[in-house]
Amino acid sequence: MPDHTVTSFDVELKDIGRKVVEMGGQAERLVADSVTALIKRDIAIAQKVVSLDAGIDQVQREIEEKSVLVIAKRQPVASDLREIVAAIRIANDLERIGDLAKNVGKRVIAIEGEYHPQKLVRGVEHMSDLVLEQLKEVLDAYAARNERKALDVWGRDDAIDTMYTSLFRELLTYMMEDPRNISVCTHLLFCAKNIERMGDHATNIAEIVYYMVTGQTLPESRPKADASSDTTVAFPGKTVQG
Amino acid sequence: MPDHTVTSFDVELKDIGRKVVEMGGQAERLVADSVTALIKRDIAIAQKVVSLDAGIDQVQREIEEKSVLVIAKRQPVASDLREIVAAIRIANDLERIGDLAKNVGKRVIAIEGEYHPQKLVRGVEHMSDLVLEQLKEVLDAYAARNERKALDVWGRDDAIDTMYTSLFRELLTYMMEDPRNISVCTHLLFCAKNIERMGDHATNIAEIVYYMVTGQTLPESRPKADASSDTTVAFPGKTVQG
Repeated sequence: MPDHTVTSFDVELKDIGRKVVEMGGQAERLVADSVTALIKRDIAIAQKVVSLDAGIDQVQREIEEKSVLVIAKRQPVASDLREIVAAIRIANDLERIGDLAKNVGKRVIAIEGEYHPQKLVRGVEHMSDLVLEQLKEVLDAYAARNERKALDVWGRDDAIDTMYTSLFRELLTYMMEDPRNISVCTHLLFCAKNIERMGDHATNIAEIVYYMVTGQTLPESRPKADASSDTTVAFPGKTVQG
Repeated sequence: MPDHTVTSFDVELKDIGRKVVEMGGQAERLVADSVTALIKRDIAIAQKVVSLDAGIDQVQREIEEKSVLVIAKRQPVASDLREIVAAIRIANDLERIGDLAKNVGKRVIAIEGEYHPQKLVRGVEHMSDLVLEQLKEVLDAYAARNERKALDVWGRDDAIDTMYTSLFRELLTYMMEDPRNISVCTHLLFCAKNIERMGDHATNIAEIVYYMVTGQTLPESRPKADASSDTTVAFPGKTVQG
């Protein structure tokens, strides 16, 4: 940590905020790279993603430590306190996004050389485009302290969930059509789930930004369209019963 | 929040600690219930799990709020500060365990009436027994401020990961043998993954307890045996190639 001789509270706040934005950029790149690795089946990129995740974990710890020290030293209240707590929470969500990207990277390495169903991989790509956009927007909302923008992101997670549910069905159908696809499709299923969860974390961040700026919490339940936990696909032409 | 007229720092610390232990108990029950619902295919229990998760989320927010207020008011240092930061972090892990149990509950509801491969469900049960034991032990370690016990838990996650990887293989093989099993096995796969991740959170909590008590961090990487992200299963008798 740099040695501040004389430093104002504002400088410390800005410093924490800058670290969060920086960490957001790292997380974005990791997500983008993990998806590129998956689409291009690029093992080198996948390995890079797996190794770079540790850097994000490190920044999270730094943000948390710094924030706790500032709370203790400055005893902030109201919007200043919300600002610092928001930094801790957002860093937590970004760290989890990094973990999910790392897991996608590992799976890319696992399915090296296996059959690659282009159509389904495109489905994952399409979904991850949306997630990356959400992530970018919510980090902009954070940097600009813009609660409207945060609200927009919060309302849009729906689209990702719908896409995931449809991809889930498609992957299952694909496995049923040809059992040789099962192993690779299972990994794609987990990749898709990971990407959908990144979207959930972007939505979490939107809620945090909204609270940070306005002091108001968004309603408990937003429109939720991920029905995959409740989705089954019947084996074609058969009733699946125990 | 109750109105303390005169209160000592110790009372506040104990109060936060008690809330964490309480929350741990709630999380344990939710995990146990979600697994019971899965094994007995009990929709009523599954629905209860899905609805009770909100209570855990609420306690997490309370612990975080209270902790931040105490940091600001008391400016704790050294072991007192570690104690409070630990409460925030553990509450965070417990909240995620609750989410995972809820997701298992949702999947139990989804696969209602479908074929129920007893052998595989027993595999999930066996794994969840271990996870519940880990969770219980780590909460005891927290309550007793016992770093040795935390270290034991930390070293044992291995067994859960190994079990998960073998279950992953078994589920994939099962799907390949009979594509009618694909839908239900996919949900079981996600249930198993959820339970394995609960184990990861128990390990996280062990790290937090260790740090809280000793002020030392455990090494970055513990022996990790979950190889499922790197595992594929070849279709019997065929080479799976793109």
